Amino acid sequence: MKSSFLKKHFTFVFFIVFLLFSFKASAQKVRPIKSDQGEVVTMHSDILKEDRRILIYAPKDSANSEKKYPVIYVLDADNHFAQMVEYSKYLSRQDVFVIPPLIVVGITNTDRNRDLTPSHSNVDYFGKSDTTANSPYKNSGGNEHFFQFIQKELMPYVSSNYKTQPYRIFAGHSFGALTTINCLINYPDMFDAYIAVSPSFWWDQKFLLKLADKKLKAGSTLSKTLFFSDGNEDSSSPGSPFHTDVLKFDSLLKKRNIKGLDFEYMTYPAESHMTVPIKSYYDGLRFIYHQWQLPPVSDEKLNPEIVMKHYKGLSQKFGYLILPDEAYFNDLAQWLVKKPATLNNGIKLLEMNTVNYPSSSRAFTALGAAYVVKGEKQNAIASYKKASELNPTSNEIKSRLKELQK
Amino acid sequence: MKSSFLKKHFTFVFFIVFLLFSFKASAQKVRPIKSDQGEVVTMHSDILKEDRRILIYAPKDSANSEKKYPVIYVLDADNHFAQMVEYSKYLSRQDVFVIPPLIVVGITNTDRNRDLTPSHSNVDYFGKSDTTANSPYKNSGGNEHFFQFIQKELMPYVSSNYKTQPYRIFAGHSFGALTTINCLINYPDMFDAYIAVSPSFWWDQKFLLKLADKKLKAGSTLSKTLFFSDGNEDSSSPGSPFHTDVLKFDSLLKKRNIKGLDFEYMTYPAESHMTVPIKSYYDGLRFIYHQWQLPPVSDEKLNPEIVMKHYKGLSQKFGYLILPDEAYFNDLAQWLVKKPATLNNGIKLLEMNTVNYPSSSRAFTALGAAYVVKGEKQNAIASYKKASELNPTSNEIKSRLKELQK
Repeated sequence: MKSSFLKKHFTFVFFIVFLLFSFKASAQKVRPIKSDQGEVVTMHSDILKEDRRILIYAPKDSANSEKKYPVIYVLDADNHFAQMVEYSKYLSRQDVFVIPPLIVVGITNTDRNRDLTPSHSNVDYFGKSDTTANSPYKNSGGNEHFFQFIQKELMPYVSSNYKTQPYRIFAGHSFGALTTINCLINYPDMFDAYIAVSPSFWWDQKFLLKLADKKLKAGSTLSKTLFFSDGNEDSSSPGSPFHTDVLKFDSLLKKRNIKGLDFEYMTYPAESHMTVPIKSYYDGLRFIYHQWQLPPVSDEKLNPEIVMKHYKGLSQKFGYLILPDEAYFNDLAQWLVKKPATLNNGIKLLEMNTVNYPSSSRAFTALGAAYVVKGEKQNAIASYKKASELNPTSNEIKSRLKELQK
Repeated sequence: MKSSFLKKHFTFVFFIVFLLFSFKASAQKVRPIKSDQGEVVTMHSDILKEDRRILIYAPKDSANSEKKYPVIYVLDADNHFAQMVEYSKYLSRQDVFVIPPLIVVGITNTDRNRDLTPSHSNVDYFGKSDTTANSPYKNSGGNEHFFQFIQKELMPYVSSNYKTQPYRIFAGHSFGALTTINCLINYPDMFDAYIAVSPSFWWDQKFLLKLADKKLKAGSTLSKTLFFSDGNEDSSSPGSPFHTDVLKFDSLLKKRNIKGLDFEYMTYPAESHMTVPIKSYYDGLRFIYHQWQLPPVSDEKLNPEIVMKHYKGLSQKFGYLILPDEAYFNDLAQWLVKKPATLNNGIKLLEMNTVNYPSSSRAFTALGAAYVVKGEKQNAIASYKKASELNPTSNEIKSRLKELQK
């Protein structure tokens, strides 16, 4: 019966089998992309008397879980947090490495016009006053309270829950930019660097320009880094003083010649008020870290003295000990070791890595391999021995050691 | 006994209760950020005889699940996919809206030097030839096969699994940029627009420059959009012709005066080979969509004729029907309706939305509300009736209708 069934229905069965196979051939495995975008922290603020939703991304270094990172605080986080995280990730990649990896703390809004304004006013951008209970600015002027929240509640939370270095950046756009500049002027101890994108200097009859004029005294000292910018805000509202105000601030800073204040102003005529943050946050990060990369030097001249001097300078500038990145200089050294003319430069960099990272098995393994290339067998053995001590479970290191000791 | 226990241990119990409360006060809710980053599709390619890992992000419109989107294909996806997704998301937000939302298809590498080179060569950037089995370029020259994979396997998969419009962009960096330009020259039907970041024209004795010189004939027609760029590649290798080659390509395009070819070249002296993609992909998208936004027009002059004419132009340029975005013009109209001087402009835009989106309950509801503002009761009733027909379960619409019919 089975056989007769098959005979009768052969074409049909064949067709089904064919379908099954062709389905299999074109089947794809589909799964969601799981990339670390950070976490949402809902914390209660006693100072602001409300819950705040904070977005926090922290870089991870699988080879060094104790590694600490500078922190960038970003306002209007629902707009700009994701982009800032992408910059932190991409720009600190080993093959890019123009900034260190950053912890990104994004503050989302509850009452934006309250928190992100330096003074109380009921007058809008067009000069129209609204003193009714419906005024969007009825609670304005909350910067002071907001700074207290950041300093006394948010920063302690971040410091105790993440591995932070004592270098902090404050980034904001529009009212957020006003807020960062107000913070620089009134609470300069809170942050080390600032990115202020299209600050709304029009607010409250140029309140902040007046404050800057009064407080930023000629020849005074303020060791901070500040990047600020604007877009083509004027073009959509002809006659608006948006750009003029930013130019005034720039010229004030130039005139006052404040010691230690490293600042840059960029204007982006092709960008609107809503697109200008993308380029500004990028250029702002690059400006804050413009000294981060090792200055160009030929492979033949590259040596630990140059590297250590550069990182000593960075440590002084950023206020905490910054060692040459182990993985970055390991890679660079591998490249040098390959060429006979720069083999010694490579070995010296690898020796530097073992001094800077004395508990890194990887550093001693790499150095051992380089000694092998140079034919320095005893040094190679010593280096592999140390690597094996630091990572006793590695059979690979043991077998290389055995090979050398034959 | 209970009581004596409490008496004895009062301080201790009090302390425990205090601890519990203070813990509660500072407790935070922490959970991972879940933002849609797209999905990973592992598909087998019969043409390349291997599995390929493809990253795909598709925008979602909760109000219109049938909405279709243009597609951007990005090479070296492990480097640039995440940034492209962020651009697609941010730049198409309703309050930014300088490009349409894009489906992003990222192609990750298996053998990069094979797939992303237009010809076979064993000579590296420094002019050194390596014909051994270890040569990184031993499989080079795979562009043809790679294009077949994209055209015959990947594109059909994307078209049948995602809601796509027939407008496709091809974006690549370095060898990837070579690949996009080779595709433009040899397979112009595959894509409509190209972003070529720092093309490695040095490859195979300027193979691609020679090809362009031969194939891009003066006065011929090629209706495509091309953005290309470079960074400061020369500065780290003095005397390298990287920048000169890109300038040569630019000057070739200018001389040949190809009809329909809309191209722009940007150079970024402050960017390195690895940072230049960030700004280039941004500026490239902005260039491809430089006509996307409605040209500036005063609120008083804004009307459906201007809007429909603009979108007719966009439909012609991009080759598929593009209607004014419902939500965007709904928002704009709400703003106009608020001011007596532009109330009629607002109503006309809302009427336009009901014509363009005849099955949108939201469009008729918004129009009904605007008629109420103007005091046109009968029109308001008709509009709310239509809205209620389209969304019979909405009690809000029903109650507004009832209110009007009193």
